[in-house]
Amino acid sequence: MKKIKKIAITGGTHGNELTGIYLINKFLKNPTLVKRDSFKTFLMHTNVKAIKQGTRYVQRDLNRTFTQKELENKSLKTYEDILAKKINKELGPKGSKNPNIDFIMDLHSTTANMGLSLGVNLKDKLSLQVATYVKEHIPELKIYSWRGELKDASFVSSISPSGFTIEVGSISQGILRADIFFKTEKLIQTILDFFELYNTNSLKKTCSQIDIYCNAKIIDFPKDKNGNIEAMVHPNLQENGYLKLKKGDPLFVSLNGNNIYYEDITEVYPIFVNEAAYYEKGIAMFFTEKKTIKI
Amino acid sequence: MKKIKKIAITGGTHGNELTGIYLINKFLKNPTLVKRDSFKTFLMHTNVKAIKQGTRYVQRDLNRTFTQKELENKSLKTYEDILAKKINKELGPKGSKNPNIDFIMDLHSTTANMGLSLGVNLKDKLSLQVATYVKEHIPELKIYSWRGELKDASFVSSISPSGFTIEVGSISQGILRADIFFKTEKLIQTILDFFELYNTNSLKKTCSQIDIYCNAKIIDFPKDKNGNIEAMVHPNLQENGYLKLKKGDPLFVSLNGNNIYYEDITEVYPIFVNEAAYYEKGIAMFFTEKKTIKI
Repeated sequence: MKKIKKIAITGGTHGNELTGIYLINKFLKNPTLVKRDSFKTFLMHTNVKAIKQGTRYVQRDLNRTFTQKELENKSLKTYEDILAKKINKELGPKGSKNPNIDFIMDLHSTTANMGLSLGVNLKDKLSLQVATYVKEHIPELKIYSWRGELKDASFVSSISPSGFTIEVGSISQGILRADIFFKTEKLIQTILDFFELYNTNSLKKTCSQIDIYCNAKIIDFPKDKNGNIEAMVHPNLQENGYLKLKKGDPLFVSLNGNNIYYEDITEVYPIFVNEAAYYEKGIAMFFTEKKTIKI
Repeated sequence: MKKIKKIAITGGTHGNELTGIYLINKFLKNPTLVKRDSFKTFLMHTNVKAIKQGTRYVQRDLNRTFTQKELENKSLKTYEDILAKKINKELGPKGSKNPNIDFIMDLHSTTANMGLSLGVNLKDKLSLQVATYVKEHIPELKIYSWRGELKDASFVSSISPSGFTIEVGSISQGILRADIFFKTEKLIQTILDFFELYNTNSLKKTCSQIDIYCNAKIIDFPKDKNGNIEAMVHPNLQENGYLKLKKGDPLFVSLNGNNIYYEDITEVYPIFVNEAAYYEKGIAMFFTEKKTIKI
């Protein structure tokens, strides 16, 4: 087993998600909070310009710029493309066998009611092992995964071989909420605790299986031919991330008050329901399927 | 009694408050919904460029540009200053004895839990009469007021002699919520119903007094010398607009988890608690005092 030597906690990848930005501020002021004996913890505000502006990004979404292909493409010249290459050099480089950082946890918040969520790479055993440990200590935790290879992942946390996107909500963009701030902090502390035990071979046997919400499929809002939204997320789903949806359940409600129902026979679990930042991406929610994975 | 001939419903004064924008869309598509026999209803998206951008404003907050002084100041050249003069010509002009619109309701949403709220001018008897009628039909309604003369008011709704700012929350910026959408619509319909009865002398005797939250005082977040927030809104207040606050009640909680208490002996009722758009204005909340006003 290879020891984890350097962990990065990153925040402000989206400049209007204040929880991570202020947690990094807190840790920078009190580094002992994130210090452990067996590894070094590195703290970073990733998109400083977006943080100053109080916007998600300056020119493009930084958390969609870290595919291997885009990192290698020198013709990409937006503020975030250039920033991504700089961050990749500092924390990676991505794909390296000896990257500067072994594990990245990138702090996000969402306007969707996702509670405490970890976005993991299903193929990475270490991430799944951490997730299982955290789930045992924080039972409300949910874990979702994305499809594909690490090299094609575009997230900050995909720079290192293992890592998480941490999503906590619901919370509006541009605000701090004490409950969400302290929950996110507890989650970070639990992850750091895992690695201290991991490095010192002190981990007790963890649970051997875990539920993961996977293979996300994009669902857009019903729209007219001009692209205007014609129906909103149904109130049943609004503050109910990971709710099981079965055929005949209401999904949207039109501006005129008519329900639109889920029509498929496959049971799905919507996540990122009504995330503000996804309106421009044409995403009302993602449908996931719940799978039990053996660790 | 002077009849009300023209009412304007305006939305998108802040381009990231979607409720009003989409309600105007709905009404433009189905004008009969806001049609009444005794007056004309005019519909308007006020800040079209900010709506397209999905931002609160382009260069400055449009809903702070309508003081008489600023409307008359030709040296003000931001996008919103020029737009304000155009809107003032269309809906006003402000201060005219014969303005184009008699009553404006400007639709807003807030990340603060204000429920259904009306912002009124305490000196305008007609507005108070409408508010009283609405409160009788929608008991959850709250009414707050601002200090000062109409000419010094900077809001869109201050262009006409009478009018409201309608604030509904909590809702994140940049999203639609079905519950808030339909509640706001019901509020608008109730106001239109009032004017139909008013114009046809069919109003029944309404309640003779009403509670109003007035004389708002700005409260900023505790900050360090660099302007960084050191404490968040206390969880007790977070989703509790208009909560009575008395000496010794928790007000903020520091990033380190220490409570900061309200120390004054005057009982206050915080509003606009943790509104995202007010972070840049240095406002964590407003303290109001509850007054019972005779109508």
